Amino acid sequence: MGFIRSIQWRCVMLLALLVLAAGARAEQALPSWADGPARTAIMDFVTAVTDADGPDYVPPAQRIATFDNDGTLWVEYPMYTQGVFALDRVAALAPSRPEWQTTQPFKGLLEGDMSALSAAGMQGVMDLIMATHAGMTAEQFEEQVSNWFASARDKRFNKPYTELIYQPQLELLEYLREHDFKTFIVSGGGIAFMRPITEAAYGIPPEQVVGSSIEASYQVVDGKPAIVRNAKVGFIDDKAGKPVGIYQHIGRRPILAFGNSDGDKEMIEYTTAGEGRRLGLFLHHTDAEREYAYDRESSVGKFDAALDAAPDQGWIIVDMKKDWKRVFAFQ
Amino acid sequence: MGFIRSIQWRCVMLLALLVLAAGARAEQALPSWADGPARTAIMDFVTAVTDADGPDYVPPAQRIATFDNDGTLWVEYPMYTQGVFALDRVAALAPSRPEWQTTQPFKGLLEGDMSALSAAGMQGVMDLIMATHAGMTAEQFEEQVSNWFASARDKRFNKPYTELIYQPQLELLEYLREHDFKTFIVSGGGIAFMRPITEAAYGIPPEQVVGSSIEASYQVVDGKPAIVRNAKVGFIDDKAGKPVGIYQHIGRRPILAFGNSDGDKEMIEYTTAGEGRRLGLFLHHTDAEREYAYDRESSVGKFDAALDAAPDQGWIIVDMKKDWKRVFAFQ
Repeated sequence: MGFIRSIQWRCVMLLALLVLAAGARAEQALPSWADGPARTAIMDFVTAVTDADGPDYVPPAQRIATFDNDGTLWVEYPMYTQGVFALDRVAALAPSRPEWQTTQPFKGLLEGDMSALSAAGMQGVMDLIMATHAGMTAEQFEEQVSNWFASARDKRFNKPYTELIYQPQLELLEYLREHDFKTFIVSGGGIAFMRPITEAAYGIPPEQVVGSSIEASYQVVDGKPAIVRNAKVGFIDDKAGKPVGIYQHIGRRPILAFGNSDGDKEMIEYTTAGEGRRLGLFLHHTDAEREYAYDRESSVGKFDAALDAAPDQGWIIVDMKKDWKRVFAFQ
Repeated sequence: MGFIRSIQWRCVMLLALLVLAAGARAEQALPSWADGPARTAIMDFVTAVTDADGPDYVPPAQRIATFDNDGTLWVEYPMYTQGVFALDRVAALAPSRPEWQTTQPFKGLLEGDMSALSAAGMQGVMDLIMATHAGMTAEQFEEQVSNWFASARDKRFNKPYTELIYQPQLELLEYLREHDFKTFIVSGGGIAFMRPITEAAYGIPPEQVVGSSIEASYQVVDGKPAIVRNAKVGFIDDKAGKPVGIYQHIGRRPILAFGNSDGDKEMIEYTTAGEGRRLGLFLHHTDAEREYAYDRESSVGKFDAALDAAPDQGWIIVDMKKDWKRVFAFQ
């Protein structure tokens, strides 16, 4: 009897500990999110799709969540991080490219004249991308990107760009994964620019990153088989390209998608138009003090048509100022 | 003291059980593989890259394994499964396509004359693919594929095609995943044709399938946002396209790759040319009795240049007849 009672006692203690732990976990979920409609919508959604006895249950394999990157997971303002990288690469490459001293947009960019880029139009942007992102092996480009991230600092915050990631979103990604979601990045940015840092920065492995790409080919370089990055646009993963990128790369319609601009409208629309319960969210940059405030008039992260469509579509607008208790981990 | 001794005793018992379990597990690994050089090479490789204290250790995140599908994971002979599907779709669609009664290659195919296809050349093959794989939504195509797999039977074995999967390969996929590998399919076949069945058939989710694709677009169909499959070739994931597909889709060089034909040569070459310990394998179809015997002269799964290159490259040739105790689960 003493033995049985001892086991019973242990079971009671264990149950009590489990109940306490579950309570602590619920209380700690999404700690940087303010109590409010956005946090509630997320937690209600996750509760509903993970309740095996509920009407909205979704099996783990189908719990696909897609996140835009620029302006949704990290800062995109006043210039996309990849744009800063491209300009820094132009400066680094200039000594070996004397022709840039007389060719636009490079001449202007090297003189700090950003208007040279807009003056050169779409072709100028393409020239800039191809000069800095093509003509090397995949391994070489990855090394250039990794080295740049290790040394570059954002001008306003004086932090590495990998620290300009939104703390509430890191918590959300982790919260979703704890509930057996598979988290993907679906970004208009370059897939090869993001992949070297997504695992350490977001816990998202390279194979779960979808993005824009240039064409590549398989060649023998210096006697070794390698992937070479070619100066030709491959796939543009923006606007109506995002659902296509999701289809080709992931092969399933997400049940949750998070964006911040009109470039994400089709991804959110495609996600929430699926059958069963779905959640579409947009981050609204409303916090000039802790980060930035911009929307309808901005050339970076323009948020206008999607902002108008959100109420009718049931999309959740996350108000950075109101819904986030903290923006960056370092704050 | 009695209490302490009781705990010591329990620990000894537990250790004994663990040792026994480990022994049983090692004995049971890859049970359909014959004791021989191929099985040994695989197990030595996995032991080496998972030994955290060894010189060949590879962290779990980098344990990427890629498998060709046709002829490597399931039967491809005498006709690719996707080819059988396309022919069956032509028959099913014929009543609504009266023009096919007078147009090649459709006229010939409907009359059972396969030579009409080779006579129509590459354009004929493209016409066949586009007529059966494009012009519908992603969901519609997925349903057509799933329905076909549910009813179609292979002529020789009279089995559903999803039972013509090689049992030793299912064991290998599982063995690799047990050792924290992430397993991918990298096939010359259509990505959208494979995805509906890979999870149930191989334990490989749709997002871990790389393949050939046609272009797609995002459109509103019957008032609902959908992906539409367009009659235009997108990406050909074969030969030198395989390393490119791996780069664009996975973003890391595999450490193990398994193929069976010259179409896999570049994938295996790319894999084994990486730094550190790598393993490249080819399945050699040598078993006319249990499956098929074909290699250098075959139009399906031609295995010639890669077979010649294997010894110098250190690639493992898996001899179906000698290295596999069992080919199919039903045998």
